[in-house]
Amino acid sequence: MSDSKSKKTITLFGAGRSATFLIEYLLKHAPSEGWQIILADSNPEVAFSKLGGNPNGSAVSCDINDAVKRRELIAASDFVISMLPAFLHILVAKDCLMYNRDLATASYLSDELKEMEDEIKAKGLVFANELGLDPGLDHMSAMKIFDEIKRKGGQITSFKSFTGGLVAPESDDNPWHYKISWNPRNVVLAGQCTSQYMESGNVHYVPYHRLFRISEDIKVIGHGTYSMYVNRDSIKYIDLYGLEGIQTMIRGTFRGENYCDAWAVLIDLGLTDNSTRMSLNKNFTLREYIIGFLSGSGNNYKHRIESTIGRKISDRTFEQIQWLGLFSNDTCPLQHPTPAEILEYIIVNKWVLKPGDKDLVVMQHEIEYLLGDQTHTLYSTLYRTGTDDHHTAMSELVGLPLAIYTKLRLRGNFGTPGCILPTTEDLYKPILEELEDIGIKFIESHKI
Amino acid sequence: MSDSKSKKTITLFGAGRSATFLIEYLLKHAPSEGWQIILADSNPEVAFSKLGGNPNGSAVSCDINDAVKRRELIAASDFVISMLPAFLHILVAKDCLMYNRDLATASYLSDELKEMEDEIKAKGLVFANELGLDPGLDHMSAMKIFDEIKRKGGQITSFKSFTGGLVAPESDDNPWHYKISWNPRNVVLAGQCTSQYMESGNVHYVPYHRLFRISEDIKVIGHGTYSMYVNRDSIKYIDLYGLEGIQTMIRGTFRGENYCDAWAVLIDLGLTDNSTRMSLNKNFTLREYIIGFLSGSGNNYKHRIESTIGRKISDRTFEQIQWLGLFSNDTCPLQHPTPAEILEYIIVNKWVLKPGDKDLVVMQHEIEYLLGDQTHTLYSTLYRTGTDDHHTAMSELVGLPLAIYTKLRLRGNFGTPGCILPTTEDLYKPILEELEDIGIKFIESHKI
Repeated sequence: MSDSKSKKTITLFGAGRSATFLIEYLLKHAPSEGWQIILADSNPEVAFSKLGGNPNGSAVSCDINDAVKRRELIAASDFVISMLPAFLHILVAKDCLMYNRDLATASYLSDELKEMEDEIKAKGLVFANELGLDPGLDHMSAMKIFDEIKRKGGQITSFKSFTGGLVAPESDDNPWHYKISWNPRNVVLAGQCTSQYMESGNVHYVPYHRLFRISEDIKVIGHGTYSMYVNRDSIKYIDLYGLEGIQTMIRGTFRGENYCDAWAVLIDLGLTDNSTRMSLNKNFTLREYIIGFLSGSGNNYKHRIESTIGRKISDRTFEQIQWLGLFSNDTCPLQHPTPAEILEYIIVNKWVLKPGDKDLVVMQHEIEYLLGDQTHTLYSTLYRTGTDDHHTAMSELVGLPLAIYTKLRLRGNFGTPGCILPTTEDLYKPILEELEDIGIKFIESHKI
Repeated sequence: MSDSKSKKTITLFGAGRSATFLIEYLLKHAPSEGWQIILADSNPEVAFSKLGGNPNGSAVSCDINDAVKRRELIAASDFVISMLPAFLHILVAKDCLMYNRDLATASYLSDELKEMEDEIKAKGLVFANELGLDPGLDHMSAMKIFDEIKRKGGQITSFKSFTGGLVAPESDDNPWHYKISWNPRNVVLAGQCTSQYMESGNVHYVPYHRLFRISEDIKVIGHGTYSMYVNRDSIKYIDLYGLEGIQTMIRGTFRGENYCDAWAVLIDLGLTDNSTRMSLNKNFTLREYIIGFLSGSGNNYKHRIESTIGRKISDRTFEQIQWLGLFSNDTCPLQHPTPAEILEYIIVNKWVLKPGDKDLVVMQHEIEYLLGDQTHTLYSTLYRTGTDDHHTAMSELVGLPLAIYTKLRLRGNFGTPGCILPTTEDLYKPILEELEDIGIKFIESHKI
């Protein structure tokens, strides 16, 4: 730490939409905490506009691949936050290790970061990860409940936990019931792995091409119904959460009602592959592109989809697909794109949050546990609507846990050296308490 | 070139099974051509054994990631051949550029190599690619026919070209009619992209999860029937082969009879994914692993497969799958493997070429062309059986075109500076002629 300065410098890499609330929190607390905030972004105008003239912050231009500039910024910092795309954290992490700086991110702890843990520990540094919404708030809110149940002597037998970044009902005006409040690339590539979960003591593996077909409708207590698909590896969370012996363990992602059925058709047609550059004419139309994936001929596209994928689809599903403009003469300017890039190009336009649109974040845990000889079911639900298309619930719930952690860590005695996650009470308790003070609260309901 | 030496030094990186015939050719011609052969491999014992005491060759240990050793070898060479796995060529290529050495490989010309082409040209170097079987002999034999048809004034309307590395009938003793004569990893990952081809003027795109389901049985003239799946991007070969205006363009890969139907089921179950590390117990059994992918319960595995993938499978297909041991108590020692790694572990054992087993390479082109107002169909077929499990037809047909190219290039005036493929007559003609002298010959048959 650069003790010679009276103020502590916090450098944030990546000042895009997801960082709005994080930046506002940091600027608000800067005077009382004695902070100076540096926003480093490849687009410094956007970063600068987020400062709103606040004298405690400044914006700098930084191409994250420019090692000289990056290291200069990190060397001059007391604390570093990365809100970059997850695969870029490692660049920042290596420099933080070199210059002995603490680091915090809202992303999954990566294997390459884990490999550095011995060195991180040896230097007494704390690299904190998974401090956003999902991963982040999901861990904290679940561990709080698990710890309470265990303290009472209960035994957890089932855990289902679902989170989604959605659109608020008042701004929902499309048949997918979905708009994009986070990285559109990740919306297209969501679930591209073998998903793993446990149900009633049995392990289940689901390949990507069937994942959205086994989606489930989930009723959120006090609110509507959402479509849910299973999210990557749920089984490894049994260890992480200390739930040995649990019979059901499912983590999933919410989408809008009816979304998963229609998305499953896009996957089945082959429109989400990101591994292949397509041979296409310049400024191809979406129809001429899509026809390449369809068997048969003629304009009955519903029938052609059905005969291609070998199953019937509902009128509603077909309307959703048609609404994307896939059979239109709309052109796509991308050159040698992958199917996933074409789909991203389409949805970024179709699923945009318009000015004033409100997004929505929904998280629901369903926990079954034995207490004595009685089975209890506990629901814990977070339902949070955004203010507008810039002040999104997504940005708030990703940014504030990270911001609160940063404050507590810089005050000292918070977190232990190494690569940490907010799964322990010393970390989650004060963060959840401050979120409650702000009005971000999980509602619990019991069923015996 | 190191002019100070009287002998020319050829360094071969990668001396595994695919390099057997290449090494024998180089050693045989070394005295008359004035060559010294260096075999560089991470396993120098295997390389050494291939020398058979020949004084014109030597074997050296080289970890390809050891830049010092690699550069030392390249600097001391007159000519470099890489038979490494394709993604490693770039390491060798960059050093060849640095030390002004010509390079030859049997692999697809990569985008990263193409990006270096200006520098390669400026230095007057020749980096020759696709000099093996497929890619390699397929280009040469097809271009020879195209050029002949064009010289006669014919117009090519359809090109279908299929190649397979198979097992000879006399060594075929398993229900997949397949054994492994090349990289088993690539057998498992084959086709993992969106395949693209053209038929009757229409473009077709096929996602991986359906690729093996649209396989076709192909009769090879004078021999048996093989199962064929479409191989990656056929469309880009229209330009490469100069076939503008062609109506049908399909490149495909042969497998054993019945193979593709059963492999399609493995893909559909999810057993070929290489993106996900699985949560599994130590020394898991194949049955406990496979059950995770199946819906339902009980021991009627055929029925459980059918209800999982949503379609009936034939008894024959089920027997093939069962024969792999997927429902057995056989254990797998891999830790945190991907599904693809588990499948590779299985097939490496099940589909091994036993001592004395003969492999088989089959290539068949089917070309339709208009001459005057008459449509002609020409078949050109290569059918080549290996000698034993070390002297494979695969190794012969991958290695010899590369070896002959090397000889001609070192004699001078062969190939033009840049990244080249053997698609022009100056290159393919002398290579095909020498192969014919050795007895490797395409049989042509006409249908009017």
